[in-house]
Amino acid sequence: MQAGERYFEDFSVGRAFVSIETITVTEADILAYAGRFDPQPFHTDPEAARQSLFRGLAASGWHTASITMRLMVTSDLSIAGGIVGRGIEGLEWPRPTRPGDRLGLKMEVVETRPSRSDPRRGSVCLRVATVNQDGEDVQRMTATVIVPRRLPEE
Amino acid sequence: MQAGERYFEDFSVGRAFVSIETITVTEADILAYAGRFDPQPFHTDPEAARQSLFRGLAASGWHTASITMRLMVTSDLSIAGGIVGRGIEGLEWPRPTRPGDRLGLKMEVVETRPSRSDPRRGSVCLRVATVNQDGEDVQRMTATVIVPRRLPEE
Repeated sequence: MQAGERYFEDFSVGRAFVSIETITVTEADILAYAGRFDPQPFHTDPEAARQSLFRGLAASGWHTASITMRLMVTSDLSIAGGIVGRGIEGLEWPRPTRPGDRLGLKMEVVETRPSRSDPRRGSVCLRVATVNQDGEDVQRMTATVIVPRRLPEE
Repeated sequence: MQAGERYFEDFSVGRAFVSIETITVTEADILAYAGRFDPQPFHTDPEAARQSLFRGLAASGWHTASITMRLMVTSDLSIAGGIVGRGIEGLEWPRPTRPGDRLGLKMEVVETRPSRSDPRRGSVCLRVATVNQDGEDVQRMTATVIVPRRLPEE
């Protein structure tokens, strides 16, 4: 399946998708993201992080969320027209991403809903787990994306 | 109020907080974030973006979320021990962040809850609106953060 080939009709509840690439997160990546977007000592300073409730350098949850988006874009979801978020219903970080972690995704369709106002679109709700190299979830998210419908041939 | 001075007892429902800095988002910022984390044409290519449903270059929603985190860290929330997210109950992007937008925050406490298992902590649930220079919301989020309690003097 090539990028951008799937339409609303191709998504059914229970169908699973996965990331194709994995991303290994380095200490330098964690420090660079945090310096710009989440400048708190447990994300920017390995020594201070050891004394914090994280007990060592931890990536910002928003860094993990950003990496998750990249993994979704390059995954086998392959939504026609791209991944356009309608909203996030839940997002949690059961454990932090650490330097050296290799992240991938497991995704599953939990709901599909044709648009009431626009016959050219529908919403697909996905459960997205971001998983490290030990199979542990570093993020769990429920996200709804807007997906174009396959139009009838003229 | 200095950074890091507020404890659980200092947060009451209805209390409002605001960002202190504002962040102006440039086209270069949008392209740099998207190239790394959300490489889709409506976020990485101004020409392709004009033909997309965004009708022009739009920041990734996760870029807006990342900027929001920075604005929270440097805001007058000033939580003792820093901002540690427990989870996000809802996150939506009613309109995209555009090149040149200047973003700030409006925050309000919607719930406070002492921890049942740990007398040293509580949860504070905040409604966080990320607002552009025209007063329009580019993001709405409901977030719960873990806040230390003020310990009784020994």
